[in-house]
Amino acid sequence: MKEIKGGVCAAKGFKAGGVHCGIRKSRDKRDLALIFSEKKAACAAVYTTNLVKGAPLTVTKEHIADGYAQAVICNSGNANTCNADGIEIAEKMCDLLAKEIGIDAKDVVVASTGVIGQPLDITPMAEKMPELVKELSVDGSENATEGIMTTDTVQKTLAVEFELSGKTCRIGGIAKGSGMIHPNMATMLVFITTDVAIAPDMLQKALSSDIANTFNMVSVDGDTSTNDMVTVLANGMAENNLIDKEGEDFDTFMKALNTVTVGLCRMIAGDGEGATKLLECKVSHGKTLDIAKTVAKSVITSSLLKAAMFGADANWGRVLCAIGYSGADVDVNKIDVAFQSSKGKIDVCKNGAGVEFSEEIAKEILLEKEIDILVDLNDGEFDSVAWGCDLTYDYVKINGDYRT
Amino acid sequence: MKEIKGGVCAAKGFKAGGVHCGIRKSRDKRDLALIFSEKKAACAAVYTTNLVKGAPLTVTKEHIADGYAQAVICNSGNANTCNADGIEIAEKMCDLLAKEIGIDAKDVVVASTGVIGQPLDITPMAEKMPELVKELSVDGSENATEGIMTTDTVQKTLAVEFELSGKTCRIGGIAKGSGMIHPNMATMLVFITTDVAIAPDMLQKALSSDIANTFNMVSVDGDTSTNDMVTVLANGMAENNLIDKEGEDFDTFMKALNTVTVGLCRMIAGDGEGATKLLECKVSHGKTLDIAKTVAKSVITSSLLKAAMFGADANWGRVLCAIGYSGADVDVNKIDVAFQSSKGKIDVCKNGAGVEFSEEIAKEILLEKEIDILVDLNDGEFDSVAWGCDLTYDYVKINGDYRT
Repeated sequence: MKEIKGGVCAAKGFKAGGVHCGIRKSRDKRDLALIFSEKKAACAAVYTTNLVKGAPLTVTKEHIADGYAQAVICNSGNANTCNADGIEIAEKMCDLLAKEIGIDAKDVVVASTGVIGQPLDITPMAEKMPELVKELSVDGSENATEGIMTTDTVQKTLAVEFELSGKTCRIGGIAKGSGMIHPNMATMLVFITTDVAIAPDMLQKALSSDIANTFNMVSVDGDTSTNDMVTVLANGMAENNLIDKEGEDFDTFMKALNTVTVGLCRMIAGDGEGATKLLECKVSHGKTLDIAKTVAKSVITSSLLKAAMFGADANWGRVLCAIGYSGADVDVNKIDVAFQSSKGKIDVCKNGAGVEFSEEIAKEILLEKEIDILVDLNDGEFDSVAWGCDLTYDYVKINGDYRT
Repeated sequence: MKEIKGGVCAAKGFKAGGVHCGIRKSRDKRDLALIFSEKKAACAAVYTTNLVKGAPLTVTKEHIADGYAQAVICNSGNANTCNADGIEIAEKMCDLLAKEIGIDAKDVVVASTGVIGQPLDITPMAEKMPELVKELSVDGSENATEGIMTTDTVQKTLAVEFELSGKTCRIGGIAKGSGMIHPNMATMLVFITTDVAIAPDMLQKALSSDIANTFNMVSVDGDTSTNDMVTVLANGMAENNLIDKEGEDFDTFMKALNTVTVGLCRMIAGDGEGATKLLECKVSHGKTLDIAKTVAKSVITSSLLKAAMFGADANWGRVLCAIGYSGADVDVNKIDVAFQSSKGKIDVCKNGAGVEFSEEIAKEILLEKEIDILVDLNDGEFDSVAWGCDLTYDYVKINGDYRT
């Protein structure tokens, strides 16, 4: 498996693009994105568990109920959520695109991200739809990525190449992360494309099983968004033998998918709103997988620990505290904690009690941009990883007045 | 019932005091507090549910197992948690006090608050114990309050006078709040004293039932501390008829207790670390009490909403979002949301969708120091209130480098 360029256009038969249509008057960036597959593709998706759901999710669910889709349309700047006419507007977005590009509206995946509870005007999107379709290109992944970004500061994209039944296959994805990130069963907006030939049910199986250990283990601020969605389109143009059951090919595909999703998770966490650091909590030797996951997620979610990491303060008591209130069944007297970065590793707690350590060395380790928080529960065989970021002045600044 | 002065010394027979003994070298404030009852008192307590528990909690639990206590000793600056010799040090604190003041060490409640995982040196406390006992006074509540404060910026204290079986009774309390506040079954450090005559089991019953709707409904940062504890000492010196069963007197006592606890909750939330605003989420018409409480707590805990309140931004979508992911069984299409302060009230959401409102008036309302977030679930008969605060630059600053 090797990393390649091209994002959502890395896979054969996919084009993408993005235009500015002024959904938020104050922002000059592209705010409408399109991903298109030459051939109709198998499609799988997972959605937020928030009871308040964006209208686009309802429409998408209906459109891909048959297991197939051919295009993704997504705007940023407005979530089209909690609006009386939300469903109608989401349907209109699909209709406009379908008409312009010549496909069935039922084959369009629609997504929105941005402010909740403000009506989404269809007019600027209707006006720019012809331009957007004209802009479609095999080099368009970056423009599409810009189109789905909100307060993201970097583009999040990754693609890999691998082999299945003697054929070269590709899978690539783009993501929009930043704030309101604490996924549960799905997350943020992530669009993944592949040219692998795979049956819709196996594609859904691969995605659903993957996100449990990837996107669901990311937290920026503990707020589960109303519009989280991850979709995969697989158009089969790599001409590998169709994956329609579990086995070696399915495993190979899962591995490639996981490489893309883990990479995007790290990018989303590291670019959390206001973040200066990517935090990775690696929990080992839990009694059950659920315990290991609960502990990892609780640590990565603690505001106190996140603030301490911002200050490069080796305040490991906050790690223990977050484990203690996580609800997981652990023996606190067995827990070891260490901090690690490219500058090295330092043990700070053994058997639930502090050990002497050099504050100077700890500081040097914690001043790095990527920090591992290593928690050994010494209680079993299960490991888990969660991704997060530090809590900074800028998080408060960004969210103190997001709507203006 | 009327509010009176005196804090934990308002009730008959109680004295208090506080001294500086230098537990944290960098701080010049009082850091060791004492509360003392002339007569042995019935004692009830509730503790954190964090699996990582401060050593003082273990010692206190043992000491008050018989339902009685006569003194409270509490240091700030060090939580005496996750230390190998924690129990031993907590016992020593009780022994030193008992010897100096002439009571049984088993009648001492001990508490600690501050950094987790740093050994607590007994020496400075041993040296200052005679001075602390000498300092005891019926005017000592303020000194004791200072002694338990960490990053608190204001003293939290409240006392009321009321009548039971023709006798004047008093109940008063002091609290230490600030960060790591997200109680579950108990909270922070709160010491309450009363001269009411009440059997230990009824005192425990009153306290346990009260905190479910008071301290457990406060959240500053979502982190449940390892050292949370609320205790009540009742020495019976008001000479009312002993309360040993439910009934009118018990109800009157509960009401007085509730007045003190709600008052302290509001003070703790309003003085959360870095807070500029007290937030009160009032949920009405939930299908069950549990639903109303879950919704109130989820709203008050949302980092995004807290940041919006800091910025006086009427971003009600975040209220809906927090309700949606709370896990409570609600019908989102029935929910109304309004913001309220001393400047008035503004409706922002009806039946789960936005309504037009004046951003100018909303801003004026939200610029106040005390904000009510009114959520009407329109789905039943149960109400609940939760208290919290905004998320500010100063929260990050305080917690970015708490240990130095």
